Amino acid sequence: MRYQLFYWPEIQGRGEFVRLALEDTGAKYDDVARTKSGMDRMLAMMKGERDKRLPFAPPFLKAGKLVIAQAANILFYLGPRLKLSPRDEAGRLWLHQLQLTVTDFVKEIHDTHHPVGSGLYYEDQKLEAKRFTDNFLDERAPKYLGYFEAVLKMSGGLFVLGRKLSYVDLSLFQLIAGLRYAFPKAMKQIERKVPCVVNVHDRVIARPRIEAYLNSDRRLAFNEMGIFRHYPELDE
Amino acid sequence: MRYQLFYWPEIQGRGEFVRLALEDTGAKYDDVARTKSGMDRMLAMMKGERDKRLPFAPPFLKAGKLVIAQAANILFYLGPRLKLSPRDEAGRLWLHQLQLTVTDFVKEIHDTHHPVGSGLYYEDQKLEAKRFTDNFLDERAPKYLGYFEAVLKMSGGLFVLGRKLSYVDLSLFQLIAGLRYAFPKAMKQIERKVPCVVNVHDRVIARPRIEAYLNSDRRLAFNEMGIFRHYPELDE
Repeated sequence: MRYQLFYWPEIQGRGEFVRLALEDTGAKYDDVARTKSGMDRMLAMMKGERDKRLPFAPPFLKAGKLVIAQAANILFYLGPRLKLSPRDEAGRLWLHQLQLTVTDFVKEIHDTHHPVGSGLYYEDQKLEAKRFTDNFLDERAPKYLGYFEAVLKMSGGLFVLGRKLSYVDLSLFQLIAGLRYAFPKAMKQIERKVPCVVNVHDRVIARPRIEAYLNSDRRLAFNEMGIFRHYPELDE
Repeated sequence: MRYQLFYWPEIQGRGEFVRLALEDTGAKYDDVARTKSGMDRMLAMMKGERDKRLPFAPPFLKAGKLVIAQAANILFYLGPRLKLSPRDEAGRLWLHQLQLTVTDFVKEIHDTHHPVGSGLYYEDQKLEAKRFTDNFLDERAPKYLGYFEAVLKMSGGLFVLGRKLSYVDLSLFQLIAGLRYAFPKAMKQIERKVPCVVNVHDRVIARPRIEAYLNSDRRLAFNEMGIFRHYPELDE
């Protein structure tokens, strides 16, 4: 199966959680909106011109005739196929539950620079962003990362499921990498309390396919259009 | 199977999307935190004292030995068991994708009164709440409801899957009911453009088990502690 991933071509965004799973397993895929006339194709699908199962927003994945949206839903589908999740129902639901908590965390990370509205510029909500981010760095980020720390401690292994890597571990890598980019000062403090999560990051980054991916031009750089944005005034 | 639902005892909140599925199908369940010493049991489970699969937050469902958190994940599990979703993988993923979009919408509804931080009082973020809500009522609520309107139009039936009711339709009922409670003025305008969504609400409210539930004391009233809050100053 050759997959087709549809996501905004200039940011890592929510598509990156899917890309990491495809890259780590050496899956064949096209990053459609980054190919010639791929953007037109993505927009046509978002208008429902190609399929009755209309996505609300990218990312979405085309797998044969199936079109699946919502990053966590895509990972739930890909998990057993890429051997990044268990095959039994209870194990798959548990892993998906963790990924949905990643999703919630990602939304709050996005809101550090867009607390009033995603359609407005950051420059028009800087005061609110500062207030949101202070609370985020004091309370929310430690709470989410502390939760994953507890899950890792209870797993009996290095990863959230124990000894075997899953797509959630790849997402934890991305969370740490992105938060370090956005909030380098604050993360130095926050990371001290979550050594198991940082360890997952370090193990993922050392995986040969991930290392090759991160050094390729397929990996977009973090930037101030994506979810993780570095605005120094927020990191104080 | 008798299910045990764990959720905060004083609000409808995210637990309500699960309750509606259980109620509409006449499933047997305990609303544990509303029973004697049920709150202690819920808090013990949130500390991981009963199970290794630690929930980040309520709601969570105990089904035999399984503990499942995240409302959309719970509904994904219950769907085929309560005959509120198809059995085939493609159909289940599509329905789940819609429910995850409900989840995203619910988070933005929550943020109308808590744009800065969920741990702070509304009274300490009223200015930000007004700005967020103006954008929400102008852009976001019409966008989400317009999306479900388009899905209903493409379904070829009255419900999101066509002729047969699913758990997503029950959630659409709750969204309309809650938004009418929170923003009665704004909803009069917004609803004009989404007649198919409103029709789902009307069909769900007329279902005998739902009607009996809404008239029972099992249905908590909307209030200013939940997701849908009526602050008249936001609805202008």
